[in-house]
Amino acid sequence: MRNNNKYIDLSHGSGGRATHQLIETIFKKHFNNSFLKQNNDNACLTFSSERLVISTDSHVVSPLFFPGGDIGSLAVNGTVNDVAMSGAKPLYLSAAFILEEGFPLADLERIVISMARSAEIAGVDIVCGDTKVVERGNADGVYINTTGVGSVENHINISGDCAQPGDTILINGSLGDHGIAVMAHRENLSFTTSIQSDCAALNDLVSHMVSAVPDIHCLRDPTRGGLATTLNELAQQSQVGMRISESQFIIKPQVSAACELLGLDPLYVANEGKLLCICPPHRATELLKVMRDHPLGKESSIIGEVTDDPHHIVEMKTKFGGARVVDWL
Amino acid sequence: MRNNNKYIDLSHGSGGRATHQLIETIFKKHFNNSFLKQNNDNACLTFSSERLVISTDSHVVSPLFFPGGDIGSLAVNGTVNDVAMSGAKPLYLSAAFILEEGFPLADLERIVISMARSAEIAGVDIVCGDTKVVERGNADGVYINTTGVGSVENHINISGDCAQPGDTILINGSLGDHGIAVMAHRENLSFTTSIQSDCAALNDLVSHMVSAVPDIHCLRDPTRGGLATTLNELAQQSQVGMRISESQFIIKPQVSAACELLGLDPLYVANEGKLLCICPPHRATELLKVMRDHPLGKESSIIGEVTDDPHHIVEMKTKFGGARVVDWL
Repeated sequence: MRNNNKYIDLSHGSGGRATHQLIETIFKKHFNNSFLKQNNDNACLTFSSERLVISTDSHVVSPLFFPGGDIGSLAVNGTVNDVAMSGAKPLYLSAAFILEEGFPLADLERIVISMARSAEIAGVDIVCGDTKVVERGNADGVYINTTGVGSVENHINISGDCAQPGDTILINGSLGDHGIAVMAHRENLSFTTSIQSDCAALNDLVSHMVSAVPDIHCLRDPTRGGLATTLNELAQQSQVGMRISESQFIIKPQVSAACELLGLDPLYVANEGKLLCICPPHRATELLKVMRDHPLGKESSIIGEVTDDPHHIVEMKTKFGGARVVDWL
Repeated sequence: MRNNNKYIDLSHGSGGRATHQLIETIFKKHFNNSFLKQNNDNACLTFSSERLVISTDSHVVSPLFFPGGDIGSLAVNGTVNDVAMSGAKPLYLSAAFILEEGFPLADLERIVISMARSAEIAGVDIVCGDTKVVERGNADGVYINTTGVGSVENHINISGDCAQPGDTILINGSLGDHGIAVMAHRENLSFTTSIQSDCAALNDLVSHMVSAVPDIHCLRDPTRGGLATTLNELAQQSQVGMRISESQFIIKPQVSAACELLGLDPLYVANEGKLLCICPPHRATELLKVMRDHPLGKESSIIGEVTDDPHHIVEMKTKFGGARVVDWL
């Protein structure tokens, strides 16, 4: 990259020399692995399982950088987590960038470094990629798609349709941190908070959980739409109801305060380092111990149970002893 | 989807009920397969090979619909082809949509139907997806990322760094059709042409080629940047030179005429249904026959040979008997 080229221009998306320079000086420099060095439009990988798990996510967050993370860490951890929620071990990621003309190369490199670091922590390789440049005004800086593949053992069967009445519902910590951290950092919002995004790769936590309790029924990360939406999705998929208890949630005081200010319910605010787990009731104590023993699960708790409800309603016992329906967003 | 909702709005990206309705009424309706019906954030697939090939591509074409294809067929065929260029059999695709607020649902459905049809023709399943909605002005209608995985047999070793001096270079037909079809259809261009995009899935052609000649050295589809850029990439990767012969290319008269009008060299114009193949010279005749016997290779020809050149130059013998360097874009 010549030093006077400090911004993305359309030539970076041409497929010609400028694209190759961008790939060499930013992407390959930081996503350093033998697969990328193949220099093909595809990566040929070893794979030793009969069951392949795949998941995809495009990331369009604004602002791109926020306390506790950025679009890069989000893009890696989000897809690692979606793969891990099947009980799989995430192995490889693709990374595809849509860049807006005029985007600062320094910001791109900062994002790429963050992705490389997140991938290293999660133990996955970023093995292939794509770069497109769109004209100024046709994107919001940068959009990143990551698609992840992993392998899952034959005896594991974790899926959103496996919850059964009587099952126990657990979560690995506090709610709403990510969404509030991002919203608070938007320029046009007039409050500040010390809240950081909980953005983290959950695959190591999942690996410990699945080793201890292979018969976990469901795992899902309550991201967009928050806990409430995820519980409703699972209730619908498994054709069951849920009963949760408000007193069991951890919501940090700053998150509560921000939610009040913004008129939001923390149950609907996005998380990026949390997982919901549904397991047979007799496995819950053991699972809770395993979760609390992990750095990303120290504040884990049992938040409710699965019910036999033909209407698939998620009901919450409030702190004041009442009950209310927790609906979809 | 309610009938009065004819356009994408931000609620379609919320992760809540509107997102689910969009998934049910458009994506799952047309991408109809058992994997999507799992309704998880990931898909769990069977896989029976020790070697996995993965490739990703984000598609940002304008206009979205053009003679011979649309962003949907392009998104499916482009990734199917990138996987196939390793000699692999493409199996599964992910599909992630970034939608601009205000995008017509009818256009989205038309694109999704086109993707479903292209996937069916290519023999792949679209097994997982993602939907994001960005505010009006932050995208150009719709961007689609597809990531593909496939399996490749252990004895196949096709890669851009395998070309050897003396090897033969083949292509399966005419140059520049896709790029000219798209450019001619842009509203602000003042010419019309009957040229259609060559957009097609090449995996079946590749499968026939690899069965007949398992020791093919390189395969690559000359998309963005055209034939010239792809040849230079391969020369660089394999540390060789190339000598091609202009008289062996097929360039349709309408493509030639459009290129002259637009001041373009057809060697740099994108193709979406073409592949370059490099093979040992004693295999070329057999391979050419296999290619010509396939519907997507009827106009295949030998266009040149790999040379021993420390400068990795691509040289072209012109129709008038001269020689010129074919440089990167």
